[in-house]
Amino acid sequence: MSMVSSNGNTSAGHAHTKLWGGAFSKSPAEVAWKFGQSIESDLNLWVEEIDVSIAHAKMLAATGIIDKGDGKKLVKALEELRRNDPAHSTHMSHSPHIEDAEDLHGAIEALLEEMIGDAAKRIHAGRSRNDQIVTVTRLWLKRKGAAMLKAIASTQEVILGLAEKHASDPMPGYTHMQPAQPITLGFHLLAHFWMLERDKKRFAAVIEMADACPLGAAALAGTSLPIDRNLTCSELGFQSPVPNALDAVSDRDFVGDALHACATLMQHLSRISQEIVLFSTAEYGFLKLDEAYSTGSSIMPQKRNPDMAELIRGRAGRAIGHWTAFMSMMKGQPLGYNRDLQEDKPPLFDSVGLCLDSLVLVGEMLATATFNLPTMEERAGEGFSTATGLAEALVKQGVPFRTAHEVVGAWVRSGGSGSQLPPEVAGSFDPSVAASIAARDSLGGPAPVAVSEQLAAAQAKLHAHESIGG
Amino acid sequence: MSMVSSNGNTSAGHAHTKLWGGAFSKSPAEVAWKFGQSIESDLNLWVEEIDVSIAHAKMLAATGIIDKGDGKKLVKALEELRRNDPAHSTHMSHSPHIEDAEDLHGAIEALLEEMIGDAAKRIHAGRSRNDQIVTVTRLWLKRKGAAMLKAIASTQEVILGLAEKHASDPMPGYTHMQPAQPITLGFHLLAHFWMLERDKKRFAAVIEMADACPLGAAALAGTSLPIDRNLTCSELGFQSPVPNALDAVSDRDFVGDALHACATLMQHLSRISQEIVLFSTAEYGFLKLDEAYSTGSSIMPQKRNPDMAELIRGRAGRAIGHWTAFMSMMKGQPLGYNRDLQEDKPPLFDSVGLCLDSLVLVGEMLATATFNLPTMEERAGEGFSTATGLAEALVKQGVPFRTAHEVVGAWVRSGGSGSQLPPEVAGSFDPSVAASIAARDSLGGPAPVAVSEQLAAAQAKLHAHESIGG
Amino acid sequence: MSMVSSNGNTSAGHAHTKLWGGAFSKSPAEVAWKFGQSIESDLNLWVEEIDVSIAHAKMLAATGIIDKGDGKKLVKALEELRRNDPAHSTHMSHSPHIEDAEDLHGAIEALLEEMIGDAAKRIHAGRSRNDQIVTVTRLWLKRKGAAMLKAIASTQEVILGLAEKHASDPMPGYTHMQPAQPITLGFHLLAHFWMLERDKKRFAAVIEMADACPLGAAALAGTSLPIDRNLTCSELGFQSPVPNALDAVSDRDFVGDALHACATLMQHLSRISQEIVLFSTAEYGFLKLDEAYSTGSSIMPQKRNPDMAELIRGRAGRAIGHWTAFMSMMKGQPLGYNRDLQEDKPPLFDSVGLCLDSLVLVGEMLATATFNLPTMEERAGEGFSTATGLAEALVKQGVPFRTAHEVVGAWVRSGGSGSQLPPEVAGSFDPSVAASIAARDSLGGPAPVAVSEQLAAAQAKLHAHESIGG
Amino acid sequence: MSMVSSNGNTSAGHAHTKLWGGAFSKSPAEVAWKFGQSIESDLNLWVEEIDVSIAHAKMLAATGIIDKGDGKKLVKALEELRRNDPAHSTHMSHSPHIEDAEDLHGAIEALLEEMIGDAAKRIHAGRSRNDQIVTVTRLWLKRKGAAMLKAIASTQEVILGLAEKHASDPMPGYTHMQPAQPITLGFHLLAHFWMLERDKKRFAAVIEMADACPLGAAALAGTSLPIDRNLTCSELGFQSPVPNALDAVSDRDFVGDALHACATLMQHLSRISQEIVLFSTAEYGFLKLDEAYSTGSSIMPQKRNPDMAELIRGRAGRAIGHWTAFMSMMKGQPLGYNRDLQEDKPPLFDSVGLCLDSLVLVGEMLATATFNLPTMEERAGEGFSTATGLAEALVKQGVPFRTAHEVVGAWVRSGGSGSQLPPEVAGSFDPSVAASIAARDSLGGPAPVAVSEQLAAAQAKLHAHESIGG
Repeated sequence: MSMVSSNGNTSAGHAHTKLWGGAFSKSPAEVAWKFGQSIESDLNLWVEEIDVSIAHAKMLAATGIIDKGDGKKLVKALEELRRNDPAHSTHMSHSPHIEDAEDLHGAIEALLEEMIGDAAKRIHAGRSRNDQIVTVTRLWLKRKGAAMLKAIASTQEVILGLAEKHASDPMPGYTHMQPAQPITLGFHLLAHFWMLERDKKRFAAVIEMADACPLGAAALAGTSLPIDRNLTCSELGFQSPVPNALDAVSDRDFVGDALHACATLMQHLSRISQEIVLFSTAEYGFLKLDEAYSTGSSIMPQKRNPDMAELIRGRAGRAIGHWTAFMSMMKGQPLGYNRDLQEDKPPLFDSVGLCLDSLVLVGEMLATATFNLPTMEERAGEGFSTATGLAEALVKQGVPFRTAHEVVGAWVRSGGSGSQLPPEVAGSFDPSVAASIAARDSLGGPAPVAVSEQLAAAQAKLHAHESIGG
Repeated sequence: MSMVSSNGNTSAGHAHTKLWGGAFSKSPAEVAWKFGQSIESDLNLWVEEIDVSIAHAKMLAATGIIDKGDGKKLVKALEELRRNDPAHSTHMSHSPHIEDAEDLHGAIEALLEEMIGDAAKRIHAGRSRNDQIVTVTRLWLKRKGAAMLKAIASTQEVILGLAEKHASDPMPGYTHMQPAQPITLGFHLLAHFWMLERDKKRFAAVIEMADACPLGAAALAGTSLPIDRNLTCSELGFQSPVPNALDAVSDRDFVGDALHACATLMQHLSRISQEIVLFSTAEYGFLKLDEAYSTGSSIMPQKRNPDMAELIRGRAGRAIGHWTAFMSMMKGQPLGYNRDLQEDKPPLFDSVGLCLDSLVLVGEMLATATFNLPTMEERAGEGFSTATGLAEALVKQGVPFRTAHEVVGAWVRSGGSGSQLPPEVAGSFDPSVAASIAARDSLGGPAPVAVSEQLAAAQAKLHAHESIGG
Repeated sequence: MSMVSSNGNTSAGHAHTKLWGGAFSKSPAEVAWKFGQSIESDLNLWVEEIDVSIAHAKMLAATGIIDKGDGKKLVKALEELRRNDPAHSTHMSHSPHIEDAEDLHGAIEALLEEMIGDAAKRIHAGRSRNDQIVTVTRLWLKRKGAAMLKAIASTQEVILGLAEKHASDPMPGYTHMQPAQPITLGFHLLAHFWMLERDKKRFAAVIEMADACPLGAAALAGTSLPIDRNLTCSELGFQSPVPNALDAVSDRDFVGDALHACATLMQHLSRISQEIVLFSTAEYGFLKLDEAYSTGSSIMPQKRNPDMAELIRGRAGRAIGHWTAFMSMMKGQPLGYNRDLQEDKPPLFDSVGLCLDSLVLVGEMLATATFNLPTMEERAGEGFSTATGLAEALVKQGVPFRTAHEVVGAWVRSGGSGSQLPPEVAGSFDPSVAASIAARDSLGGPAPVAVSEQLAAAQAKLHAHESIGG
Repeated sequence: MSMVSSNGNTSAGHAHTKLWGGAFSKSPAEVAWKFGQSIESDLNLWVEEIDVSIAHAKMLAATGIIDKGDGKKLVKALEELRRNDPAHSTHMSHSPHIEDAEDLHGAIEALLEEMIGDAAKRIHAGRSRNDQIVTVTRLWLKRKGAAMLKAIASTQEVILGLAEKHASDPMPGYTHMQPAQPITLGFHLLAHFWMLERDKKRFAAVIEMADACPLGAAALAGTSLPIDRNLTCSELGFQSPVPNALDAVSDRDFVGDALHACATLMQHLSRISQEIVLFSTAEYGFLKLDEAYSTGSSIMPQKRNPDMAELIRGRAGRAIGHWTAFMSMMKGQPLGYNRDLQEDKPPLFDSVGLCLDSLVLVGEMLATATFNLPTMEERAGEGFSTATGLAEALVKQGVPFRTAHEVVGAWVRSGGSGSQLPPEVAGSFDPSVAASIAARDSLGGPAPVAVSEQLAAAQAKLHAHESIGG
């Protein structure tokens, strides 16, 4: 019986370089080899893969598992490779050791062997690809997590700057997308600041979750070689070794937590983006995006579209999908490394990259946008937006709130004329937008005085996470 | 044009009790009313709803927004209602104020009015259902989070007890579900201990995320009444007030984090459950569940099925679905309360309940199961499981690992006879299971000496989280 | 070691009625029993459960597996039970046989035994709960599928009526939520008609997928009793028996297809709902919902909120979650009944019910809403919405489209004055909204003449599916 | 305020080629340009993009919108481009028109302009990227759908061949992964055949859903140019034009249906893969994969791992994630093209490719595997697997089934000795595996006679779908 792959390849395999095969008499089928290759995605991990190998080589030499000379050769060769990240080196990216590799571990070992011969054959003692890949991924995530904290803070800085500038500029506040009460633009923008502040907290927890070193867990059960896991752990800057070798290779919680943190951040950015899209419609007219962050139409010459905001909104769905893919993959897996786990990295790389790009774009869109303040102010006073204030004024006169609510409801139904206020407050209630905003000065409210306090609190938080994950 | 609902109801509405309607001349359509009712799900929040109202009433009296007498009446009536949770009170569960209510807020306000008349009409001053529901949900989550930490620790305790008992009982270690290296049952069980330890960490973070008080944010923009948010915050035991009123009513991050923590915990329990299912197959024969945790067949009289483990495995999918539902619901929502947010609670209640039940079941299944130690030991030695140890023995003799790997691969291919070991190690290598396990004594490894250290570390963690969230 | 459940129950079990237990010496633990109970959800299937049992009993008698007298007793008793659906019968809903049942199969068999004694013990010959539950669920889905086709058609009818009425009423057409080109309201509404038309197609396929009878597959491998699967199949109105007994009990494709169809329908309704929310904002002002389909605020007396549309939008997320939960549950399951499969029904029941309710609500909201036609018409002409028409007019004069696009782009940038049109078209191009709409008369376009043709095509489709699934 | 992208790029934009910009005075920011580029993913559509443009150019010439000479030039140039698919042409893949393009539409128009100058500027008349992309994607999906039908049939053919070969080879049948009743390997394999048969049905429906032509819908509302949509529709082989222009550009149901069909197919393949993994464990020992479809370990020389099956199992999660991402993206989108829609294609391309590859691998794994028939037969008789048959034998003697179930349950509990059968059947019941299998000859059962009939039915279905979608 013969089968042909979707790409027209027959399944006859040829000899690929691989880190196993000792007990095999046959090469893998071509279709199987390609299906299993992870090298393309692995290249994101180049630097971390090499850092982990350097730490391992140093430890092997320090513990006498390999001799000091071989250790030095390995470290030197690895440092050279580290400088030749295929992302920046055309020469390296076309190396057959990389193009034909099953995975990055194999590629690096093949390159090492080419550079230093037999010493290269000693590096895999006391480790396995199972502990290696998870150590490398954790290291990568710690670094990207630190970059994320900085990127979030940069976007927060933009928001904070705008919130300061517009601390007392009125705009309508909405519930159910219906006008509710007048607020200030600064107050509204600060809501997004705090959302992002929680994202920093969440990514700080992700970094902490990633911050344990599995190296030396080997395939699943450690090794009989006299390795020193504390040495590689501290060499790589991890807080402590993972305490159980089987857990070390089976656990991907740090990936799940990262995907959740990314999906949540994208959810937040999708909410800002939704507002950017809405506020820049002709109907709202609150916001005009800069041309550098808008696009046009191939058919309608007049169009100015908020494509970046739409893409961020849409790609929030992608981040949701990545978490779901990952969790479905993990569900019901018995312990020990199973090849399914290879599927943890593509969603991780994509979600993290998406977050970093989207943060920049949201920051830039806001920083370069023009707010139409007169329109926002005008709208702030429409839709009986001061009715709640009126009901509260009645409460201050001793009317029970539920009664006041009904009285004002009837007043609204009859047209809500400013000249026919309920008698209890007829002389005293100021229905202007400015008065309404100034009155809402409870903690966290939109009154300029409350916004001022909030700005100070926000400022204090802005760079508080910067030391984490460094 | 006339339409009839799926249930045969016409859309003619009748007068329902509701907290709004002042400006409405018409009642809601019956189909709309039912679609919007959340009272059934809300009843989970009875105690917390009342605790929040008590704190609010005390604050209203303390700040003079209502007079002290009304404040006392409100608190007394609320305390009485608190003792009559419909979950335990038949009388209350059949109250028309509950059966016909739109939501719990409306039900309680109607009950209060029945009990104390006009004073009840004063309680809604300076708050809105928007800040109320989110305060109540946060309080509920903090309490359930604390219960979760205890439940996790109980299941960990079972695992730890078994791990101690079986610290040196051999079993096969697997990768790719193929025999890899001999390990010990205690070592294997401890891997699950550490998974659950991370769950405690995650739920502790959820509690912290929930631990801020939105009360007083009102609809979205605070109030002009002289409320004291710090007072209600400390009365309810929250760490601090939410700093922005708009964020306070729009944010559901604590729900998303809880759903992620639940889905991750269920993923972990699905992995233990998968092993319970596998290990209790006729083919593995490692484990026999107690009859109290097995079920039979309506047609095959001989069956003894691990249904509870299967249900936990299957319901891990439900927890994944709940997170996905929530995140899809949140995506792209502009700020301010939108009714979509009502959809946060059904998944939250279900996921939390599922986790609590599943933890008990996993603990009980393990605690009452019988392990077939002789079978496990026998299998531990099969499948060339000591081949890695042999390769490592060659490394100790100076053979590069990659070469040793090939040598042993060839030896396996030729049958792997114990009497034809490679010459370098022929006299010295002990291929027994016991020797293999004892040799793997690197940090976190399966050797009894390493398991001993790990047990001590685990013991120290067990109850460390118990003070949180209380 | 003792454990206590989250509900404070100890795990000591008491004797529950169950369809198995012959080989058991112990009762199930209480926490396990409750975790496994599906009776509450199963009650949705009352009528279908009994219909399947009636067909089975008739077949057993017809083939002589039981005697005709017992067959008659069984059918008569079942018919009586059928009339006492606990959904409508208080007496039945409090029967201990139901309240304490593990599942519906057990409840019915216990009720039968109470009614007719020993004859009841004969009904389970040649079947298992495994084939029973899946037959019952398929039957339920076929019936609900037929109801769904009718409900979709009803909502389509509302849309079609409105589209006819507003066939030539202008409104702005949007891309990227920016004004693009003038269209008609009838044209816009018809887009939703066709979306729903595809939903009918999808549900018709679901019905077809469900339309095969597993009964007689027994546990997984048929039976040695001389059953007649064709007889039960035709008695129940299925198209044909499922051809493989193992597949019959393992397959849940029809559930997955139904959940996908529901999620897609809800996605469509979420899009209409999003437009209802948008178009009824103060900023758009295109639409005013009837009070019977709006709600108010507990704090802001002036509010008129589109809560039903928001709930439908939010619950579309729930339908997405249900599919995800189901697919995660199915993934990686080996064949044969596994208890995980019990998790197929709660999402199915919820998604189907949600769709039926949401269809009614969308229909009613649209049918009772008031459109603000003057505002829509006014907006239709804003935002250079006729620029594309101008470019096309240039094309008609021989200008290459890409050049025309640039010319019109420059004209827009310079203010787009109607009196300074490009010379090629200065005399001939009519920039009015009416002319613009009338000109877009290509197949499927917004010109009244094209809408007319489209209405006729839609009308022809409206009731075409009504005969399916009945 | 200045911001720097995650890649260190400043946001200063340079002039990119784009199909819009007439009314823009500024270039897009670099970070925005890159975020919006879809060219890499679009390249999958090269052939279909050109086929659509050819049809459009022919129509423009046929209707006189452009002159015949320009039409011929366009078609000739497009045909040349069609032969130079960058997937196979190094020259083309390095064209700056492609590398710098925003999307494929822009790339092709730029290439055309380079080839034939001004005539190229005429091709975009009467169309928009909005209708173009969706027409191209539908065409692609129709073609891939046809390839999928063939690929499924190929895998079915392997299964069918094996089922014929093993029609009467005994193996254990499982429920709850516990031994239930003896079945045959052929019977078991056929269950997978029927699963795949439903996949063909589902993909045939996807093809039908894709089979309508949106071309000519332009941006959202057709055109004032005298296009002929029926002409392009039939030129491209679509069944009919999409009847509403707004729906034509807003609808992505065919993508959602395809993603569901792919996820369901992957779910099926994950179930086969799970069985491959299980059956090739040391514990089951039913199956040995060929070395060409196994992999080894970098550390354990003896390993033979079912990596391909594990990857397919894990990647079923990816297909679930793609559907979820897509549905979350679509939810709540108002009609008209929104840029979010760009996110439909990456999941579509990935899911379809994954299915095609996985089908080949599953076919090859099964075709080249070795079944250990003696072990399977031996296991078939264990675990009281003939107990149900015994209960049925009692039923044949007039014992009510529920009573028989209890009698046999007690017999099992007492050891289930073959020499101590219940008296009613002591002489007549043959407890052998062969007799048990032969007796289960009900329709769709495992008895060789029933399998034979089933094989014939399967054979008849095998190639029935081959004419679809071609």
